[in-house]
Amino acid sequence: MLNESRIPDDDIISILKKCNAVKFGDFVLASGKRSSYYVDIKKASTNPIALKKISKKISDIIKAESEYKENKDIIIGGVELGGVPIATAVSLNMEKPLLIIRKSEKDYGTKSRYIGEFGEGDEIVMIEDVTTSGGSVKKAIEQIREDGGIVNYVVVIVDRCSGANEALESIGVKLIPLVTASDLLKD
Amino acid sequence: MLNESRIPDDDIISILKKCNAVKFGDFVLASGKRSSYYVDIKKASTNPIALKKISKKISDIIKAESEYKENKDIIIGGVELGGVPIATAVSLNMEKPLLIIRKSEKDYGTKSRYIGEFGEGDEIVMIEDVTTSGGSVKKAIEQIREDGGIVNYVVVIVDRCSGANEALESIGVKLIPLVTASDLLKD
Repeated sequence: MLNESRIPDDDIISILKKCNAVKFGDFVLASGKRSSYYVDIKKASTNPIALKKISKKISDIIKAESEYKENKDIIIGGVELGGVPIATAVSLNMEKPLLIIRKSEKDYGTKSRYIGEFGEGDEIVMIEDVTTSGGSVKKAIEQIREDGGIVNYVVVIVDRCSGANEALESIGVKLIPLVTASDLLKD
Repeated sequence: MLNESRIPDDDIISILKKCNAVKFGDFVLASGKRSSYYVDIKKASTNPIALKKISKKISDIIKAESEYKENKDIIIGGVELGGVPIATAVSLNMEKPLLIIRKSEKDYGTKSRYIGEFGEGDEIVMIEDVTTSGGSVKKAIEQIREDGGIVNYVVVIVDRCSGANEALESIGVKLIPLVTASDLLKD
């Protein structure tokens, strides 16, 4: 179990612990494997205090990433449905437009793939709550690129270290996690 | 066309006009009917400035509605997908927990109907971006009630006056619109 005294008060793990999005203990996963932590990220995205703190941290990362092109505007993107509260919170915090990317093609019929807008050459910064294989955010990025948008990186609250980094790297996109499964496993 | 000088600067119609969520002019709708206004509410929910102002107005309404039970906590509910940004913004503004209700049963399989939580007897205030027939928010409320939650009213940015008020009244729920189709038609 993680030694609580070693965690800085305001760090992301503390925030996630406080809202029960991350629990430490002895857990048996659905796969039958044992784990010393458990992540339920929805506990963070539906908790306004946690969401505010997290969106502030993500905004700081984006500002640092974007400083080489201060005059260029960006759009904050989130994939339906889990990414929407955190993308909305970052959009509000940075006062940058929001773009929601619908997940599955079978659903939308005449509906647009997007809620919100972007133009040719606009940069969209993708925000995710949690990444596992990275499949859904990768698909969304490929769609955005097909439609003329630019995506250079994804900021995620928790990366489970289960392939997302590699999947995104394969299309030239950087994954920036606030916390990774490896961080959570550190004792 | 609406006489712009007659609209108070900070009123909801001005906010919606400024972000192009409401346009006045001569429009031919998909039905073939002509209309003197056009509503594209997603322009408001993806515009952080508009979303902040609107969520502030909705929060004020909720505070007024709830003042008779100051000590009771509330949960801010939004139906997937359109209601999620506005419900998130109100949740952040009021620092009250967020509840997202998934729309269609066919999709979720083993997934929960909800993102977020509520307990028996908790009051959920539903937030919508736009109401037409009110069908999806009515269904969501019936589900919440079946699961032990209490819903007394819905706050919506724009009500199209196309049955939502009556549909919600039939289940004892009050619809509180920031602006209605009738308001938009006033000359």
